[in-house]
Amino acid sequence: MDSMTYIAMISIIIAGLTTGFGTMGPALAEGRAVAAAMASLAQQPDASSTITRTLFVGLAMIESTAIYCFVVSMIILFANPFWDFAVTQAAGK
Amino acid sequence: MDSMTYIAMISIIIAGLTTGFGTMGPALAEGRAVAAAMASLAQQPDASSTITRTLFVGLAMIESTAIYCFVVSMIILFANPFWDFAVTQAAGK
Amino acid sequence: MDSMTYIAMISIIIAGLTTGFGTMGPALAEGRAVAAAMASLAQQPDASSTITRTLFVGLAMIESTAIYCFVVSMIILFANPFWDFAVTQAAGK
Amino acid sequence: MDSMTYIAMISIIIAGLTTGFGTMGPALAEGRAVAAAMASLAQQPDASSTITRTLFVGLAMIESTAIYCFVVSMIILFANPFWDFAVTQAAGK
Amino acid sequence: MDSMTYIAMISIIIAGLTTGFGTMGPALAEGRAVAAAMASLAQQPDASSTITRTLFVGLAMIESTAIYCFVVSMIILFANPFWDFAVTQAAGK
Amino acid sequence: MDSMTYIAMISIIIAGLTTGFGTMGPALAEGRAVAAAMASLAQQPDASSTITRTLFVGLAMIESTAIYCFVVSMIILFANPFWDFAVTQAAGK
Amino acid sequence: MDSMTYIAMISIIIAGLTTGFGTMGPALAEGRAVAAAMASLAQQPDASSTITRTLFVGLAMIESTAIYCFVVSMIILFANPFWDFAVTQAAGK
Amino acid sequence: MDSMTYIAMISIIIAGLTTGFGTMGPALAEGRAVAAAMASLAQQPDASSTITRTLFVGLAMIESTAIYCFVVSMIILFANPFWDFAVTQAAGK
Amino acid sequence: MDSMTYIAMISIIIAGLTTGFGTMGPALAEGRAVAAAMASLAQQPDASSTITRTLFVGLAMIESTAIYCFVVSMIILFANPFWDFAVTQAAGK
Amino acid sequence: MDSMTYIAMISIIIAGLTTGFGTMGPALAEGRAVAAAMASLAQQPDASSTITRTLFVGLAMIESTAIYCFVVSMIILFANPFWDFAVTQAAGK
Amino acid sequence: MDSMTYIAMISIIIAGLTTGFGTMGPALAEGRAVAAAMASLAQQPDASSTITRTLFVGLAMIESTAIYCFVVSMIILFANPFWDFAVTQAAGK
Amino acid sequence: MDSMTYIAMISIIIAGLTTGFGTMGPALAEGRAVAAAMASLAQQPDASSTITRTLFVGLAMIESTAIYCFVVSMIILFANPFWDFAVTQAAGK
Amino acid sequence: MDSMTYIAMISIIIAGLTTGFGTMGPALAEGRAVAAAMASLAQQPDASSTITRTLFVGLAMIESTAIYCFVVSMIILFANPFWDFAVTQAAGK
Amino acid sequence: MDSMTYIAMISIIIAGLTTGFGTMGPALAEGRAVAAAMASLAQQPDASSTITRTLFVGLAMIESTAIYCFVVSMIILFANPFWDFAVTQAAGK
Repeated sequence: MDSMTYIAMISIIIAGLTTGFGTMGPALAEGRAVAAAMASLAQQPDASSTITRTLFVGLAMIESTAIYCFVVSMIILFANPFWDFAVTQAAGK
Repeated sequence: MDSMTYIAMISIIIAGLTTGFGTMGPALAEGRAVAAAMASLAQQPDASSTITRTLFVGLAMIESTAIYCFVVSMIILFANPFWDFAVTQAAGK
Repeated sequence: MDSMTYIAMISIIIAGLTTGFGTMGPALAEGRAVAAAMASLAQQPDASSTITRTLFVGLAMIESTAIYCFVVSMIILFANPFWDFAVTQAAGK
Repeated sequence: MDSMTYIAMISIIIAGLTTGFGTMGPALAEGRAVAAAMASLAQQPDASSTITRTLFVGLAMIESTAIYCFVVSMIILFANPFWDFAVTQAAGK
Repeated sequence: MDSMTYIAMISIIIAGLTTGFGTMGPALAEGRAVAAAMASLAQQPDASSTITRTLFVGLAMIESTAIYCFVVSMIILFANPFWDFAVTQAAGK
Repeated sequence: MDSMTYIAMISIIIAGLTTGFGTMGPALAEGRAVAAAMASLAQQPDASSTITRTLFVGLAMIESTAIYCFVVSMIILFANPFWDFAVTQAAGK
Repeated sequence: MDSMTYIAMISIIIAGLTTGFGTMGPALAEGRAVAAAMASLAQQPDASSTITRTLFVGLAMIESTAIYCFVVSMIILFANPFWDFAVTQAAGK
Repeated sequence: MDSMTYIAMISIIIAGLTTGFGTMGPALAEGRAVAAAMASLAQQPDASSTITRTLFVGLAMIESTAIYCFVVSMIILFANPFWDFAVTQAAGK
Repeated sequence: MDSMTYIAMISIIIAGLTTGFGTMGPALAEGRAVAAAMASLAQQPDASSTITRTLFVGLAMIESTAIYCFVVSMIILFANPFWDFAVTQAAGK
Repeated sequence: MDSMTYIAMISIIIAGLTTGFGTMGPALAEGRAVAAAMASLAQQPDASSTITRTLFVGLAMIESTAIYCFVVSMIILFANPFWDFAVTQAAGK
Repeated sequence: MDSMTYIAMISIIIAGLTTGFGTMGPALAEGRAVAAAMASLAQQPDASSTITRTLFVGLAMIESTAIYCFVVSMIILFANPFWDFAVTQAAGK
Repeated sequence: MDSMTYIAMISIIIAGLTTGFGTMGPALAEGRAVAAAMASLAQQPDASSTITRTLFVGLAMIESTAIYCFVVSMIILFANPFWDFAVTQAAGK
Repeated sequence: MDSMTYIAMISIIIAGLTTGFGTMGPALAEGRAVAAAMASLAQQPDASSTITRTLFVGLAMIESTAIYCFVVSMIILFANPFWDFAVTQAAGK
Repeated sequence: MDSMTYIAMISIIIAGLTTGFGTMGPALAEGRAVAAAMASLAQQPDASSTITRTLFVGLAMIESTAIYCFVVSMIILFANPFWDFAVTQAAGK
């Protein structure tokens, strides 16, 4: 088994784990925020515009951490500098 | 056991784990959001349209993180760049 | 032990784990949603139609994550691209 | 120890674990739903028909995830495509 | 150590674990349901028939998941297809 | 170390673990049920007959899961089909 | 190191673990039941006879699961069928 | 390293772990019971005799599970049947 | 497998884990903060400007810890001093 | 490395762990009991003699489990039967 | 694989883990502090200046622990004394 | 590596772990007791002498378990019977 | 790989872990203290000077434990007695 | 790798872990105590002198457990009896 195989295996593993586990936190956080938003709406329907706006800003912030994970996964799958280096080196060998 | 076998094994493992564990967070978060939605509806039936709209936006955001996991699994199973590279290399050998 | 055996073993393991663990989250989430639905019904019987509709939409969303897991298990058991590749290669050898 | 032994061992392990652990989530979820149903009945006996119907729909949804696990276990024990392949190959050898 | 020993060992391990751990979830769930039933009875003694009926239906559903585990254990101990195959093969050898 | 030693060792391990861990869930569940029963009795002494009856039915259901574990342990210690097979084979050798 | 040593070691390990961990659940459950009993007595001193009787029945049920663990430990230490078999075989050798 | 050393090592390990971990459950349970006893005494000082009696019965039951663990540790340290067998065998050799 | 392969593998693993796990804490913390913000808005709509400003300052602080993790991941992927050293050394060899 | 070294190492490890971890449970339990005692004293200062007496009895019971752990540690360090046997055997050799 | 590779690998791993995990605690703590700040603002809008000032002092203290982790990561990546020693030694060799 | 090195290593490890982990329980327990003491003082300032006395007795009991751990660590570091035996034996050799 | 490499690796690992994990506890504790401070300020604005002073004393105590960890990390990185000994020994060799 | 390297490595590891993890408990406990102190001050400002005094006594007790850990770390780093013995032995060799 040569070096490229190891790099390919590790890249697949980490791409999956980063997205698979990294979205757990944001998902739970969004669930909590949405749940609180609805409890607030039920308690104070008149403030719905403020609550909704705050919710969307918050969801955007939380989703950004999920996006970080997805971006890192995509970089590792499709723009992996170490893999590119290995392919280049293997081609030039 | 050659390199391709290792890549195939790792791809299967990660495809399964990413979906299997990555959907746990979103599922629990959706359960929490839906539970809060119904508690809010019971408390303030008049605000049902606002609550329901907020719930659907929230569920969409949460489901998106589950979709990320499923997408990564599908990429790893059916559009795996490392596997394609290995198949090409094996064919050209 | 040849490559095919390893791929078969890994496929069985992941097919089982993906369904076995991946349904834990959705099950707990559905339990929570159903429990909240009934608490809401007891508190506000007049809103039963809205609550029930919200519950069914929510259960469908949550069940979808369980379905993802089951689908991935079935793909790995019966439409596994890596296994098919190995069988083809073994047949043509 | 030949390949078939490994596949048999893995199949037994996964068949047991998938059912053994996969039923934990649904069981707890059903316990929660049933507990909430009874609390609701005690609080609002007049809504017993609606609550009971919601409970049964919910239990069916939750039980479905336990069924997925049991089905995967049974497939692995009695309709395992990888085992069938290995038996066929061993017979034809 | 031959193949049959391995299959026997694995079968014993999984038979024990499936029952040993698989009954933990149902037991806790039943404990929760029974506890909720008695709290409801104390709160609303007049609804005892409805509550008791709901409890028994619920316990039956939860017990069913424990039964799945016990059944899988018994299949693995006494009707194990992989063991039968191995015994047949060993006898015919 | 021959096969029989391995089977004996595994049988002892699993017999102990199945009972040792398998009784944890039922014990906690019974503790919860008994605690709820006494809280209910203190709240509504007049319903003591209904509560007590429900408690005993519930304890019986929960104890049944502990019994499953104990039964599997006893089967593995004293009626182990794999051990019997090994003894028979060793005697006939 | 011969077979008997392994069986002796495993027997000691499992005898200790089964009692050591298996009594954790019953102990916690009894603590919960006793705590609930005293809270109930403080709330409703007039129902002390019913509460005390229920407590003792419950403690007996819970203690039974601890007894199972202790019995299995004693069987493994002093009436271990696999050890007896090994001693017999060693004596007859 | 001969068999006796292994048995001695395992005996020391298990004697320590059984007492070290096995007393954790009873200790926490007794803490809970004592805490509940004092809360009850503060709430209903007139029922102090009943509460104290119930507490002592309960503590005795819980302590019994700690005693089981200590007894098993002492048996393993000072009346270990497997060690005695090994010593006898070594002496007679 | 040479040194560069190891460094490449480790860099991929750590880049993924640092982002994948490091965003879990910030995500949950932001979810908590957003949930508290909306509960506060519902309770005191008049203080919405103060609450919103506090929320944004807090989210910025929390997001900064997620940024640290993302920055470390990017440094490890694209500005890794150890990788640069290894590339330089390999080029000059 | 001879047998005595192994026994010495194991004895040190277990002596430390038994006390180190075994005192965790009693410490937490005593903390709980003392906390409850003070809450009760604040609620019902008139019952301080009963509460204090119950507290001391309870602390003695809980401390006894910590003492068991300390005693086992001391036995293993200073009156270890297996070590004594090994020393005797080594001296007589 | 020479010594420098090992030191480089370990440095990358620890730099990532220290930041990745070390920011989890501060992030959660800041989330808690911000959430409490907003709850306090909603409850007592008149004390907003005191609350905000306390919050900022607190956030600074908490952020300081995250900074410690980031600083240690940066030291390990860019001012690692052991790496510098190794580079010097390798250059002088 | 000779026997004395192993014993020294193990002694250092256990001395650290026993104190490092063994003080966790007492610390948390004391935190709980002190917190409860202050809550009680705030609720019933008139009973401050009784509460303070109870607190100090309780803290002494809890601290005693931390002392056990520290004592065992010190014994292992500075009065280790197994180390002394090894030193004596090495000196006399 | 010589001894110095091992000591360097271990020093890097422990320097990172001690700070990375050791700041988790203080961070969470400070978050809790700050949250409680603000809740207290909102409840009793008149006592702000006492509360603020107590908070700062408490934060200083808690921060001291984080400082211990940072100090140990810095000692290990820059004033490590074992590394200095090794460097001296290597220089004098 | 000689004995001294092992002892040095182990000493570094344990010095870091003992402080890194051993301060977690005290930090959390102090956070709890400080939080309770401020809640008490807000509830009963008149008892501030008693509460503050109790808090400082409590913090001192809790800090003492953190000091134990720090002391053990320092002993292991700078006054390690096993290291001194090894240095002496190495010097005299």
